[in-house]
Amino acid sequence: MKIAILTSGGDSSGMNVAIKRFVEYSYEKNFTPYFIYDGLEGLIDGKIKKANYKDVRGIICRGGTIIRSSRSKRWFDKEYRKKAYENLKKQSIDALIILGGDGSFRALNVFYKEFKIPFIGIPATIDNDIALNEYSIGVDTALNVIRSAIDDIRDTASSFSRAFVIETMGRECGYLALISAISNGAEMCLIPEMSYNLDRLKEKYLKEIKNGRNYFLAIVAEGVKKTEFIKEWFEREIGFESRITILGHIQRGGAPTTIERLRAVEFMSLALDNIENNPNKIVTFCDDKFILRNLEEIINSKYSLPKKALEIAKPLMGLDG
Amino acid sequence: MKIAILTSGGDSSGMNVAIKRFVEYSYEKNFTPYFIYDGLEGLIDGKIKKANYKDVRGIICRGGTIIRSSRSKRWFDKEYRKKAYENLKKQSIDALIILGGDGSFRALNVFYKEFKIPFIGIPATIDNDIALNEYSIGVDTALNVIRSAIDDIRDTASSFSRAFVIETMGRECGYLALISAISNGAEMCLIPEMSYNLDRLKEKYLKEIKNGRNYFLAIVAEGVKKTEFIKEWFEREIGFESRITILGHIQRGGAPTTIERLRAVEFMSLALDNIENNPNKIVTFCDDKFILRNLEEIINSKYSLPKKALEIAKPLMGLDG
Amino acid sequence: MKIAILTSGGDSSGMNVAIKRFVEYSYEKNFTPYFIYDGLEGLIDGKIKKANYKDVRGIICRGGTIIRSSRSKRWFDKEYRKKAYENLKKQSIDALIILGGDGSFRALNVFYKEFKIPFIGIPATIDNDIALNEYSIGVDTALNVIRSAIDDIRDTASSFSRAFVIETMGRECGYLALISAISNGAEMCLIPEMSYNLDRLKEKYLKEIKNGRNYFLAIVAEGVKKTEFIKEWFEREIGFESRITILGHIQRGGAPTTIERLRAVEFMSLALDNIENNPNKIVTFCDDKFILRNLEEIINSKYSLPKKALEIAKPLMGLDG
Amino acid sequence: MKIAILTSGGDSSGMNVAIKRFVEYSYEKNFTPYFIYDGLEGLIDGKIKKANYKDVRGIICRGGTIIRSSRSKRWFDKEYRKKAYENLKKQSIDALIILGGDGSFRALNVFYKEFKIPFIGIPATIDNDIALNEYSIGVDTALNVIRSAIDDIRDTASSFSRAFVIETMGRECGYLALISAISNGAEMCLIPEMSYNLDRLKEKYLKEIKNGRNYFLAIVAEGVKKTEFIKEWFEREIGFESRITILGHIQRGGAPTTIERLRAVEFMSLALDNIENNPNKIVTFCDDKFILRNLEEIINSKYSLPKKALEIAKPLMGLDG
Repeated sequence: MKIAILTSGGDSSGMNVAIKRFVEYSYEKNFTPYFIYDGLEGLIDGKIKKANYKDVRGIICRGGTIIRSSRSKRWFDKEYRKKAYENLKKQSIDALIILGGDGSFRALNVFYKEFKIPFIGIPATIDNDIALNEYSIGVDTALNVIRSAIDDIRDTASSFSRAFVIETMGRECGYLALISAISNGAEMCLIPEMSYNLDRLKEKYLKEIKNGRNYFLAIVAEGVKKTEFIKEWFEREIGFESRITILGHIQRGGAPTTIERLRAVEFMSLALDNIENNPNKIVTFCDDKFILRNLEEIINSKYSLPKKALEIAKPLMGLDG
Repeated sequence: MKIAILTSGGDSSGMNVAIKRFVEYSYEKNFTPYFIYDGLEGLIDGKIKKANYKDVRGIICRGGTIIRSSRSKRWFDKEYRKKAYENLKKQSIDALIILGGDGSFRALNVFYKEFKIPFIGIPATIDNDIALNEYSIGVDTALNVIRSAIDDIRDTASSFSRAFVIETMGRECGYLALISAISNGAEMCLIPEMSYNLDRLKEKYLKEIKNGRNYFLAIVAEGVKKTEFIKEWFEREIGFESRITILGHIQRGGAPTTIERLRAVEFMSLALDNIENNPNKIVTFCDDKFILRNLEEIINSKYSLPKKALEIAKPLMGLDG
Repeated sequence: MKIAILTSGGDSSGMNVAIKRFVEYSYEKNFTPYFIYDGLEGLIDGKIKKANYKDVRGIICRGGTIIRSSRSKRWFDKEYRKKAYENLKKQSIDALIILGGDGSFRALNVFYKEFKIPFIGIPATIDNDIALNEYSIGVDTALNVIRSAIDDIRDTASSFSRAFVIETMGRECGYLALISAISNGAEMCLIPEMSYNLDRLKEKYLKEIKNGRNYFLAIVAEGVKKTEFIKEWFEREIGFESRITILGHIQRGGAPTTIERLRAVEFMSLALDNIENNPNKIVTFCDDKFILRNLEEIINSKYSLPKKALEIAKPLMGLDG
Repeated sequence: MKIAILTSGGDSSGMNVAIKRFVEYSYEKNFTPYFIYDGLEGLIDGKIKKANYKDVRGIICRGGTIIRSSRSKRWFDKEYRKKAYENLKKQSIDALIILGGDGSFRALNVFYKEFKIPFIGIPATIDNDIALNEYSIGVDTALNVIRSAIDDIRDTASSFSRAFVIETMGRECGYLALISAISNGAEMCLIPEMSYNLDRLKEKYLKEIKNGRNYFLAIVAEGVKKTEFIKEWFEREIGFESRITILGHIQRGGAPTTIERLRAVEFMSLALDNIENNPNKIVTFCDDKFILRNLEEIINSKYSLPKKALEIAKPLMGLDG
């Protein structure tokens, strides 16, 4: 059986670990592994190559994806999907493994319905915004990159009376901001999924300043689009000089953490164990277990942030806990 | 209610996060938090102090334990336990929280039976060797310290034809070695719980060398006491120069990881939520959930390494997978 | 002799190492060391305290400054300087050591002329913008924090065709941006001291893209105020999606590097060796040697970026090398 | 002109930066760059390949050496050197650049005398043991790896009353141990170049313990061969439990620091600027300047540790400062 892998959408740390496992475990199972470079764009353009052990040597500790990724507009046009199909046929590829978010899974689902190329999807996105799935490849590493940055800021924070506003990635999903705020003991957490009450926060902060607090740490998800505003709010309303840190793409990089590596290996093992007899599924992670689900089930469910974490974080939004 | 905390046995990264949560959440719940310094030794000697917010400022990112730890021989002598009891009475302490391994839990269990001081135990040991519990505070950080060291070695490894023997902590328990070997793609993994077959490993390695392998990574748990032997074995039997790295106490230190911090907070929250009405329990972590158990249940069960990991690692011991 | 230390202006990593050396070496020399908290503001307000060994335990590996810092407007008013003088007299402080930039040195120079309190200044600013001085405390650590962030981005960079715009600190001085651009192999470097030619860079980049280049790394100093503009320029003129990372205060933090620690110790040793018989000087570092200079000499000279580095970096500004 | 590069002896972090600069600057100067793989062994065996931009992409942040290294016994036999010469002639290589220690420089010096292949040597060894040269590629990174390990231990150190014995690399040269002991505030420093007086250290330590010291940090260079002995000495004579950390090959790896990268670039630039008209020299670094020297001058001088550092460290050896 010939199986090809592609990475799609935003890259995340740990993709390379999954790619390494894909090659090694494929050979162990007597599959022939192929790489599709540049995501769906590369599939359309036929950038397909047989993969071997050497390709994946030493990549276990590298962020990003060695087979690169893309966002494809052409894919929405059936003509290009047909081209993609013909590229696969030419090389006799039997099935696909895709690493990405649910947009990527939909892309292959449509493709399957049209051309009967079976696939399995593996969640890999630092947004961690896939329904019925608690873990996507890249999340633990991103959280630790943010943590390490905040630890560096903490040392300097107490040197001045200042507010530090840290913008984390997350256009529509505040997962990284939420977990970072809790685990790093931040005073403010703003995420796109939740409202917030600055007046109540102000009241609380002014009280804390009287009790000796001399710095604030605010975590603001990119998608809230309030980073600059919050900086000015601290200066105007709280009377604290304020500084912005926009972590940006650092969050996608960094050496994958231990848990990242373990889970990436397990996600991929399950994908290859099922690609032959149980395809067209998404491997999800729930309650410390891996479960295969139909895409429909995922699409028809709504992604939600972990409730316990939300409860803990509500006071950081000026809301009732 | 007056509650005192102590840390006992080997320290581990994340203890300080739990201590910080202990102080802050105690005040939130209208308990009065106390520190006992130097573990059971300090309890015998009456090193007890009321704790406040200032004591725990900035400790969230520090390894070790600010209230220090000890191993106490005197505790086995009832006379000293009586002294400990009197110290607690003098300060009107109502209950104890202990962070440590199961030896520490037994110590407080005996104490409870004799003097009726209720307690709750929280697993904190990088050995991760407590029955019916999948996670102890310190483990994720230790695993990432080991990973980072191996990543550094990996760069240099391919510069020579060499074998690298890395000794991880773990006197009777190979958990760190086992998970590190799998997540870092090692070629050998020796742990005290399992036998191994060097002849079969030799056969396999010699074959791989023919296919171009030019370095080996061997993870050996401290408790196997074979670190020096394996170094010499590689030189004598495989014909590869070999180098030893003994990571030692680095594994107990380092800034706690994100998961470490989250779990430390959750362990402690549960401990304080139950200390009043449901004491004399150990907070355990299983299947991504926190569960309170009686000490007897834990003592009467046998600790075992995770089966799935063992299966994956058997070939690294020269055993059938 | 009673000597007090203060840190002034922006904090930088390594200040704590110098503070530790200040306390320990003072006692070695039979001086009595004092801390002034909160910089010149604290001097005005009399926040002065005798320092001891315990105060500096464990701070060698922490960024920031444990005695905090400030920027003081009141200092420009003689009335407040008189207050500061009286605070020093009250405690019989004989001399001052100040860590900061040349603004801080001028502040104490005026103070000396008015009240005859001798002082020695030690350069400590991540801007590294003091004339006749090649190294200020904080610089090597800041450079390595930036490097580490860029290394993380590099992994993810090759996963897409993208331009990464990284804003480093430096309001009027491009030192960090300049050295970071060279040592990290960036394609663009914009600093406040130099002009740039985007048309020539565009021409060069388009040629490189034809030859296979698939990502760009642009380092832009904060003071250029073009970070957002450069991002848009890459998208509009080069046709590459572009992302911004604003490192912010991370650059002031982080554990001091080895060189940082060594130099901080040497700066302080020299300051204390000279405070009695050769005061009112600034300790500078030139050609790998420490030299004491009069403030006037420094003020009357012009700070300049290292020539060799500028020559190497000119092509990254679109200028002739 | 065709120029080949090889790395020889122990690898060190920063070699890859020099290799990247070698390729890029060679093309800039219209030289043709070649790689010799596996050091002198590969030269004998003819492992020579033309190098291009792609070979050095992304290696700037990796430890080790992508062209690998070796120690060669065959090289001492003229027959094999003749073979090496013929390999170079076959490919019309005009000159060699070698990265390594002074053993490597001698090897090429003999070769030059016999076969008139000009060369330039660049110091690259974490031992930093080359006479008339203050910096070898790899040293700053190794020092920071050691520092980071000690910082991790420091957190845990104060949790117990313990002595931590850390063995650094350095068979005949104690440079790493010396600088690490000073910059990390260790209590003991043993190096092969110096004697030591344990009785006086014992006396000092016992006094400090009375004054509240509760842990010791001892840095012992590998070449002293006393690591195990010192551990036992602390337990027997000082009455402190003691733990060993042998850092091993971690010290050769890790991402090169900023200074490492800058200096590696400068070393190589000078080598290529002189290979044509001023060859058979070693590039050395002294007083913050790069100087080309004849090998004879280096060989006839004696390597010595920096005097100022030795003076500071003498009390850590129990000697008079």
